Amino acid sequence: MMRGGYIELAHGGGGQLTSELLDEVILPAVGGQQPDKLTDAAVFETAGKAAFTTDTFVIRPLEFPGGDIGKLAVCGTVNDLAVCGATPRYLSLALVLREGLEIDLLRRVLASAAAEARDAGVTIVTGDTKVVERDACDGMIINTAGIGEILPGARLGFERIRAGDRVLLSGPPGEHAIAVMSRRERLSFSSEVVSDCCSIHRPALELVERLGERVRFMRDPTRGGLAATLTEIAEATGRDVEIDESAIPVNRAAEAAAEMLGLDLLSAANEGKLVAVVAEDAAEQAREMLAGHEISARAAVIGTVGAAGGLVEMITRVGGRRVIQKPYGEQLPRIC
Amino acid sequence: MMRGGYIELAHGGGGQLTSELLDEVILPAVGGQQPDKLTDAAVFETAGKAAFTTDTFVIRPLEFPGGDIGKLAVCGTVNDLAVCGATPRYLSLALVLREGLEIDLLRRVLASAAAEARDAGVTIVTGDTKVVERDACDGMIINTAGIGEILPGARLGFERIRAGDRVLLSGPPGEHAIAVMSRRERLSFSSEVVSDCCSIHRPALELVERLGERVRFMRDPTRGGLAATLTEIAEATGRDVEIDESAIPVNRAAEAAAEMLGLDLLSAANEGKLVAVVAEDAAEQAREMLAGHEISARAAVIGTVGAAGGLVEMITRVGGRRVIQKPYGEQLPRIC
Repeated sequence: MMRGGYIELAHGGGGQLTSELLDEVILPAVGGQQPDKLTDAAVFETAGKAAFTTDTFVIRPLEFPGGDIGKLAVCGTVNDLAVCGATPRYLSLALVLREGLEIDLLRRVLASAAAEARDAGVTIVTGDTKVVERDACDGMIINTAGIGEILPGARLGFERIRAGDRVLLSGPPGEHAIAVMSRRERLSFSSEVVSDCCSIHRPALELVERLGERVRFMRDPTRGGLAATLTEIAEATGRDVEIDESAIPVNRAAEAAAEMLGLDLLSAANEGKLVAVVAEDAAEQAREMLAGHEISARAAVIGTVGAAGGLVEMITRVGGRRVIQKPYGEQLPRIC
Repeated sequence: MMRGGYIELAHGGGGQLTSELLDEVILPAVGGQQPDKLTDAAVFETAGKAAFTTDTFVIRPLEFPGGDIGKLAVCGTVNDLAVCGATPRYLSLALVLREGLEIDLLRRVLASAAAEARDAGVTIVTGDTKVVERDACDGMIINTAGIGEILPGARLGFERIRAGDRVLLSGPPGEHAIAVMSRRERLSFSSEVVSDCCSIHRPALELVERLGERVRFMRDPTRGGLAATLTEIAEATGRDVEIDESAIPVNRAAEAAAEMLGLDLLSAANEGKLVAVVAEDAAEQAREMLAGHEISARAAVIGTVGAAGGLVEMITRVGGRRVIQKPYGEQLPRIC
């Protein structure tokens, strides 16, 4: 039986207490293997092209409206695989726990990670747990790495983007940043903004499956938000990207909160949004496909790729033009 | 050009400063891809059985006699793959950097990781970088996940272990723990103990390639040391493991330091050692193979698997018997 309700340094020692933490908290939560099958690595069968990705999550606070670090850690890696056109299959889950962390909080976070993994159809197959002193980390850091199988029809990459291609966005930008920030600052708005934190592989992979190479590029606009993703596209292709502000879906509560907090929603982090660049003649079809999924119901065609230039320009609601710059640094540290 | 010599929070924002850090420090060091090829995941071809593993490194200090956190992060994951009988192929490298970290230290650590990866024949294919505030982490945390191809002849697992099988150890135990501890405590011994931190895949995989299923089980005895590995074998198999203390290779300087520090070398962490359980008739051959590699030159047959029981017993140098217990907690926090 786990003694006490808090993580101790000794839980990270590789001995008896580590086994207890694994057997009584971690493995039951993440649907783990039999203890006698615990080896240093998981074995899986593969064939063909696979995608491999990693992401560390340092978000503060650990729980926020719409999710927690466990759900985020699964969604983040699932989404990185999905935007490569890969069906997410296997995840690793590596925990760094701070001495003194409530074990109940750990249980909640793991349950949330496990639920999201089940829902996304991925299996957590291997893991690691380290414990550090009170002053050496706050709360919990999670790394997930993921392996996915690339869809045979996927032909994605900056180099596939052509002049005239359309840019789609799956929903209103900035909800994750606003939700985390409002919790962090203990702000309350008349209507609470909830993080968009979710796995977007179903709509993303449907695009690839049904539109094939007419889908040129996909990205989940996390840190740096829509602005970072669009400027990367412009930089990497050397093409202008023209965005229509009035076409960008808006979450009114997030907009109000952003104004109050002095944040730019276009540079604010998302954790369940998709940016897709598709051929002109596939744009409306793509929008409809995305709109068929609840998590991307408000998808919109927000812009067009130009012939040359390398800048992102936005036609504002009042008809002006504004250059969207790559965010310089950090609006919000510890957002994912 | 990177401004300043220290990591700032803004380096983690996903914007322009993140790109600079990536393009000028991280990618050049780890032999990275072209920036225009930077997507959220790496693509690789696979066929057959693969192994997948993850490990987070929180060692303190970041540099120690015989290695640093970068080398350790590569070796640790290479070794976890190797002991599954897998040829290490691809690594991810995820950094959590503390605001204020010296960029020169980061460069050294990355160069060291890259050199070890090259030497081990693995490719760092994907990564992630996060920055946290001064009070939220100390120095640097690295997670590596790895993918390896399992050798066709590998038949490894606790369930393969039989009565009469022999236990081999590739060299003197505890060198990593002593090296780190002496640096941490600023102790100096007449002869400095150097960490054994290294990739052990060559000797480990040679055993599997040449002895096939006569190799029953392999493990790299890291946290919890030899004692943790042996007690896990005894627990998982329900068999006794009898160890001969006089057969265990000794590093005299490590032994002296351990005595001074009050540490038990059998429970102390290693980062470049191999424990292998092999069929009785293959033990001498296995020892010779290991001895043919510099990093396992002092390999020895240290014990035998019994019929039943589930305990680890050591016959001491003076002929007594001592039960080796699973370490309870942590001798040394932050050792890997």
